[in-house]
Amino acid sequence: MSLYASRLKPNAIRALAHLINRPSVISFAGGVPSSQTFPADEIAEIAARLIRERGSEVLQYGVTRGRAELIRRVCDYMRARSIEAVPEQVILTAGSQQALDLLCRVLLDPGDVVIVEAPSYIGALCAIRNSGARIVAVDLDDDGIKIDELELVLRQSGRSVKFIYTVTNFQNPSGVTLSSERRQQLMDLANRYDVMVVEDDPYGELYFEHSPPRPIKSLDEEQKVVYLGSFSKMLAPGLRTGWAVGPTGLIRLMELAKEAADLCSGGLDQALVEECLSCGLLERRLPVLRDFYKLRCQTMLEALSEYAPQGVRWTYPRGGFFVWVWLDNMDATSLLEVAVEQGVAFVPGQPFFADEQVGGNTLRLAFSKETPQRVSEGISKLMMLIRQAQCS
Amino acid sequence: MSLYASRLKPNAIRALAHLINRPSVISFAGGVPSSQTFPADEIAEIAARLIRERGSEVLQYGVTRGRAELIRRVCDYMRARSIEAVPEQVILTAGSQQALDLLCRVLLDPGDVVIVEAPSYIGALCAIRNSGARIVAVDLDDDGIKIDELELVLRQSGRSVKFIYTVTNFQNPSGVTLSSERRQQLMDLANRYDVMVVEDDPYGELYFEHSPPRPIKSLDEEQKVVYLGSFSKMLAPGLRTGWAVGPTGLIRLMELAKEAADLCSGGLDQALVEECLSCGLLERRLPVLRDFYKLRCQTMLEALSEYAPQGVRWTYPRGGFFVWVWLDNMDATSLLEVAVEQGVAFVPGQPFFADEQVGGNTLRLAFSKETPQRVSEGISKLMMLIRQAQCS
Repeated sequence: MSLYASRLKPNAIRALAHLINRPSVISFAGGVPSSQTFPADEIAEIAARLIRERGSEVLQYGVTRGRAELIRRVCDYMRARSIEAVPEQVILTAGSQQALDLLCRVLLDPGDVVIVEAPSYIGALCAIRNSGARIVAVDLDDDGIKIDELELVLRQSGRSVKFIYTVTNFQNPSGVTLSSERRQQLMDLANRYDVMVVEDDPYGELYFEHSPPRPIKSLDEEQKVVYLGSFSKMLAPGLRTGWAVGPTGLIRLMELAKEAADLCSGGLDQALVEECLSCGLLERRLPVLRDFYKLRCQTMLEALSEYAPQGVRWTYPRGGFFVWVWLDNMDATSLLEVAVEQGVAFVPGQPFFADEQVGGNTLRLAFSKETPQRVSEGISKLMMLIRQAQCS
Repeated sequence: MSLYASRLKPNAIRALAHLINRPSVISFAGGVPSSQTFPADEIAEIAARLIRERGSEVLQYGVTRGRAELIRRVCDYMRARSIEAVPEQVILTAGSQQALDLLCRVLLDPGDVVIVEAPSYIGALCAIRNSGARIVAVDLDDDGIKIDELELVLRQSGRSVKFIYTVTNFQNPSGVTLSSERRQQLMDLANRYDVMVVEDDPYGELYFEHSPPRPIKSLDEEQKVVYLGSFSKMLAPGLRTGWAVGPTGLIRLMELAKEAADLCSGGLDQALVEECLSCGLLERRLPVLRDFYKLRCQTMLEALSEYAPQGVRWTYPRGGFFVWVWLDNMDATSLLEVAVEQGVAFVPGQPFFADEQVGGNTLRLAFSKETPQRVSEGISKLMMLIRQAQCS
């Protein structure tokens, strides 16, 4: 067993899967897109045509970097989001999780420091932790990561900080969005302290009213930012297609690491995504997705304000999948056991914190999966359980 | 940049791609299955049906270990090849390259020793080298790795040897098959010296006359062997589906590493492979594939015996994709430049050796991609060039 293996720990959410994936349970647990949003009929038709007409290409090995035409389309897509990128600055990955893993492999040695938000995305925490790097977490508020605390950490940790990891829009797990002003401040700090920024943005297109502020990457004049995007939430996660935009040299290192990691990503998956972009399907679907998740979020927020007892607080996301909840003097993991028995599930917040001592009184609610009616019913149930626990 | 990044080097074959992938060139270079062998029409039909009827499942995130039903089918398939495995001993991976990478991550620390064949598969050499392990190569002959030399290395390197990596059937790049007797001897050595064996078998089903000897894994009574399989050559590499069978604890570590590496493999790809197995398509295709590659191999061997000048030797594979060639006092890389100009390509043998000082006079010929006519034409051309170079 290697040192790497000795650091491996189960992803706390995936370890809960047996508990929270029972069909009878109203689940606010898994942060996955609703399968109702998948354009299955269109994808079925495209798949049949692609394989029949271009099977010798899409079923064959492909280049490690990813299909050239899809990379060009990603560049166009990035341009529309204020990010200028040439193909040499882009790599396609097996979901953005692979991009995170490749980044950790080529950037981190044991003992290096990575700054994350508190709370932060579990998949990133796992990849960083597995590399042996030390994680330092900086608190969030309603406008995202607290810039003054971030600067303090940068000043204290100096050269050992390799990158700042941030989910800028409708963050997983908190639902919070980094304000426009703080994006510029974060960019300035990264330049001043000469650290990289990994800007993870799987939810940016899933806004409810207004598109979020311009990405940090669009402010990046000194090639300090790696932007991660994903088609998992916009299209379908089973197609395992994400991408990274970053400095040419770093993208090249990620390509070399990917070569040994899996040679290349699935050809059919990439070609399917490419077709969904080129025929305009993705663009046509986005307004539908926004309305879909907005309705569920509104329902959840309304149910919370109707049913939540005193002492329970939560965030007000403007997009994405998640509401974050603070309980008053109550342990979320114990609550989960009771809740699942009563037919409602969520994810306790503690695993989203790098520091195992904090976050025990928090939880993440995903509104992405259930129907509005079940969202309302589930929140009512859960709040009743909280009220009962408060009284006992 | 991490220490890991500092070890990354381009895969020598992929770096040649721009040279050898010109359509006008008769290519014996890329070790890829012929796209003519892909059952595209059947896969197109299955894909359309799967996505239409079970889109919410196959387009969604899946479990890290891989689809349970496909894992069960892999267990059945293994049993037919004399390997007893329960689902806990199996993980599905994004091609067997990912299995190699995960194994290297969980087994190897910098400074560890891995024993490989000389020559060996480049993708494995890359993954092992990237981990910082030291590679010790043991020569092959017509019956596979030389057991007496292997024992010598094991005796000298002792505890630092973490595993022996072997491609047992129709080896990439040499085309050689490990004899039945040596499989047992290798197993005995692994048990005696307490080292793991990684048995990589992507070509085993592609035999021309007789199926190869029983896998080493079928002789494994002390849980020392990890067997790697792949659907890339039997079905289509674009579907990126391979598997590993090994000790439960090790497979669990690979699962944890995969969780951080890419969360899960593509759902559609796995479901497609599953359907190809369950409807009998894979089994029906295998005899067709065997005949397809046998014809090309025979053509190549006949052309070699007709056109090869004195001093050129080669192997006689009984399956797979590759013939290995020794030149007499001639550098294969210089030959490649001339050959590509004249419209024929191959891969110089040196990169398949862990030791950069050897193998300069060897080359690999893949007969898998070209039509029999072009195989014959290409060999005739190449041998003429060798004859010319001998005279100059």
